Amino acid sequence: MEGDGGGAAVGETYRRYWEDFHPGETLSYGEKRVTREEIVEFAREFDPQPFHLDDAAGAATHFGGLVASGWQSCGFAMRMLVDHVLRDSTSMGSPGVKSLRWLKPVRPGDTLHMHQTTLSTARHPHRRDIGFVNSRFEMLNQHDAVVLRMESGGMFLLRHPEAP
Amino acid sequence: MEGDGGGAAVGETYRRYWEDFHPGETLSYGEKRVTREEIVEFAREFDPQPFHLDDAAGAATHFGGLVASGWQSCGFAMRMLVDHVLRDSTSMGSPGVKSLRWLKPVRPGDTLHMHQTTLSTARHPHRRDIGFVNSRFEMLNQHDAVVLRMESGGMFLLRHPEAP
Repeated sequence: MEGDGGGAAVGETYRRYWEDFHPGETLSYGEKRVTREEIVEFAREFDPQPFHLDDAAGAATHFGGLVASGWQSCGFAMRMLVDHVLRDSTSMGSPGVKSLRWLKPVRPGDTLHMHQTTLSTARHPHRRDIGFVNSRFEMLNQHDAVVLRMESGGMFLLRHPEAP
Repeated sequence: MEGDGGGAAVGETYRRYWEDFHPGETLSYGEKRVTREEIVEFAREFDPQPFHLDDAAGAATHFGGLVASGWQSCGFAMRMLVDHVLRDSTSMGSPGVKSLRWLKPVRPGDTLHMHQTTLSTARHPHRRDIGFVNSRFEMLNQHDAVVLRMESGGMFLLRHPEAP
């Protein structure tokens, strides 16, 4: 916490509170370059299916080559979200995801970036200090093709919990 | 692929095809013991929010201590799914997730296990060799509390693509 100041002040880091998310606004950020090594390393730990581990095995499937685990794609999106939005915010985590689509494979050498659109905001039904932000996230590759689309909710502290 | 044989034969590994998923059936498997080290290591790479990195920072939030990133929880669930179901199957990946809820925090020392219930199955609209399996996944901790609930789809090769 940095006192009760709103927005950026001189010599002070901007900190995003619940009140700073506005339905219809889009934030664009990233990038993340994907390497073969990190695809295989993640797959060994969390998703050891052949098409996430081996070029030839991937080439033998409809993927046509080595592809990242969908859960690693979520991790790439999350890291960009943290670096560009959540790190300087009052984020209190997320209750869950409404929908999540892996629309195109993520491959070694891809460079990813993000668009995040605020869909709606709401106060917590019981806690005056917390609010929900419902957002649509799209992660795109270097060809501007959407590889992942997700609608999910985040919780943030309010700057003015006393407000009606 | 191991020819066109169905189910387990003498001296042969059982391989699960699309036809082997039956609506209403539940598979139970796992376990995964969670360590503080892997929670922090994952967070450093994919989700560096304070409550995923540091005990004191987590204790200062509604989580009441260090908690795993929700995306790592998905990774733990995926690894159990691969080890116990997908590894010996004709899995062709997943188009996405219908819903995903992080219901309780996953903490260092937790021991997790899985229940997977087949909700529905369907043929691919265009490809005769592929079918969809829609499942509900629940990941539970050592107190049998559901920490993650997810409904998602998988694609599997058919044993008998020529069947009507």
